[in-house]
Amino acid sequence: MGPTIKLSSGYEMPQVGFGLWKVDNATCADTVYNAIKAGYRLFDGACDYGNEKECGEGVARAIKEGLVTREDLFITSKLWPVFEDGDKVEPACRRSLSDWGLEYFDLYLIHFPGALKYVDPAVRYPPGWHFDGKSQIVRSSTPMHVTWAAMEGLVTNKLARSIGVSNFQAQLLYDMLRYAKIPPAALQIEHHPYLVQKELVSLCKAEGIAVTAYSSFGPASFLEFGFKHAEAMVPLMQDELITGIAARHGKEPSQVLLRWATQRGLAVIPKTSRPAVLAQNLECTGFDLEQDEIDKIFAKDMGIRFNQPSNYFDTDKMWIFG
Amino acid sequence: MGPTIKLSSGYEMPQVGFGLWKVDNATCADTVYNAIKAGYRLFDGACDYGNEKECGEGVARAIKEGLVTREDLFITSKLWPVFEDGDKVEPACRRSLSDWGLEYFDLYLIHFPGALKYVDPAVRYPPGWHFDGKSQIVRSSTPMHVTWAAMEGLVTNKLARSIGVSNFQAQLLYDMLRYAKIPPAALQIEHHPYLVQKELVSLCKAEGIAVTAYSSFGPASFLEFGFKHAEAMVPLMQDELITGIAARHGKEPSQVLLRWATQRGLAVIPKTSRPAVLAQNLECTGFDLEQDEIDKIFAKDMGIRFNQPSNYFDTDKMWIFG
Repeated sequence: MGPTIKLSSGYEMPQVGFGLWKVDNATCADTVYNAIKAGYRLFDGACDYGNEKECGEGVARAIKEGLVTREDLFITSKLWPVFEDGDKVEPACRRSLSDWGLEYFDLYLIHFPGALKYVDPAVRYPPGWHFDGKSQIVRSSTPMHVTWAAMEGLVTNKLARSIGVSNFQAQLLYDMLRYAKIPPAALQIEHHPYLVQKELVSLCKAEGIAVTAYSSFGPASFLEFGFKHAEAMVPLMQDELITGIAARHGKEPSQVLLRWATQRGLAVIPKTSRPAVLAQNLECTGFDLEQDEIDKIFAKDMGIRFNQPSNYFDTDKMWIFG
Repeated sequence: MGPTIKLSSGYEMPQVGFGLWKVDNATCADTVYNAIKAGYRLFDGACDYGNEKECGEGVARAIKEGLVTREDLFITSKLWPVFEDGDKVEPACRRSLSDWGLEYFDLYLIHFPGALKYVDPAVRYPPGWHFDGKSQIVRSSTPMHVTWAAMEGLVTNKLARSIGVSNFQAQLLYDMLRYAKIPPAALQIEHHPYLVQKELVSLCKAEGIAVTAYSSFGPASFLEFGFKHAEAMVPLMQDELITGIAARHGKEPSQVLLRWATQRGLAVIPKTSRPAVLAQNLECTGFDLEQDEIDKIFAKDMGIRFNQPSNYFDTDKMWIFG
């Protein structure tokens, strides 16, 4: 087993995992099964990814074949905003558990802050964003401290071993630290050389919150959405600095990007369907970058955030996570 | 009287006011008195500025001489973080009212999010930040929704006509909109061409929250603190774009900076002790910028925030408002 991060809950989280966003349903079970075979133990899923059943099939096959036990794995899922009302949290978690075929999650995260009006799973699942059909997102009046109390209930009821948040800014996190009976064990954020988030990561370090980086390869993750600002940028995998560092170490650019994050103490959750890359990504903690290489990668920071809900749809309702 | 902004509370707030930060005690009463004489009606103060008694003296003299009535004025004060515990909010507001010699504030703001451990005014007033004497800021466990409920009590008890917040990020503001019985009427933020805050301003517009810009002249406000990044920048008053636009309109660069903000719908609170500038600043809504001038000023945005508590002191405890 590779390096782990000790969570404030007492559990260990693998530092390198597999991200399940955009893994399509047709290949998902095989992808998860193959990743387990390749040595992956952490799988980062979510209700919103729409593939939790298939993920569960891959896990079940690996367990059935004796590759791993449930205890060897670290499975993450996430609560979608339309389920952030206090009484909707546990049913949503149970639905995800049922889809995965699991009795507990190792980590359950609030996917985005900001409760939206409930969508019955019988009507639409995964529910996506709650719009009024025009340009408005329909809010629920449930504040975060109510959602968080329900999240704490998941730990009490042994549905989640650790709980945390995703896409939170500093101030909302600090407020949570004031009311939480169980502090958030982890924060998952967009993180790459164009979005370094130095202060937010420092905050988490000071407060004992593990940080997981998503979209470690930057704009590459967002090209398929047709984001013009992602297309306009030099892909990090072809960036001269990154390729230069990779050549010096005899590694791939992707490994340099992942090592820059893991050497910083973050967990990473890359995704790939290519077996060779599957192994490369997992091995990304097997070498060390020099301090000046790390500094140069930091200097690429432009504060550019791609994963903002407002980037995905036409709406005059601004909705901001950055 | 100049242009006003209608607050969600129903009251009108002057769009151009006078900011009392860093107005020294020796000259403060005269400064306020002279500003009233020059036509200013909004005064933006705070417990933390340490000059509320002197501000009140200036107001009292102007009222006594019949220049204005209390109802003509719009007086703002702000709650300091060490008073954000639920039971400390009203006493802090009453102390500020007593210093000003007023019965109510037109607007009372939470100065910064994040309650800190209480400091008895008998021990130190204004209290400043609450440190442990080493490098740690000492938090109170009071979350924002508890503080806000106490702020709402000020309206009920007629100590404040409108209430709002300052230095809040989007997510904490959205959370407040979910639990507030009285929504925040105003948000005060650092705002200048190097920190445009487009999405935060859009959010406020969509939610009916008035925005007041502070430090409209950018780095100039922070030179006295020895901020190296402020010193390293071209002063906005000497910036070629700003001086060029000013020359074209026959105005001062400061007026261009204020007009750019007010034409955007923001309130501004410049400060000066020079009588000529006092009048110029107040007159900043008397001309209009062209759309292409506005666009060019927007293009200067660098996302640079100067007023972060972490900029003011050596501390390994990161404390972030941006």
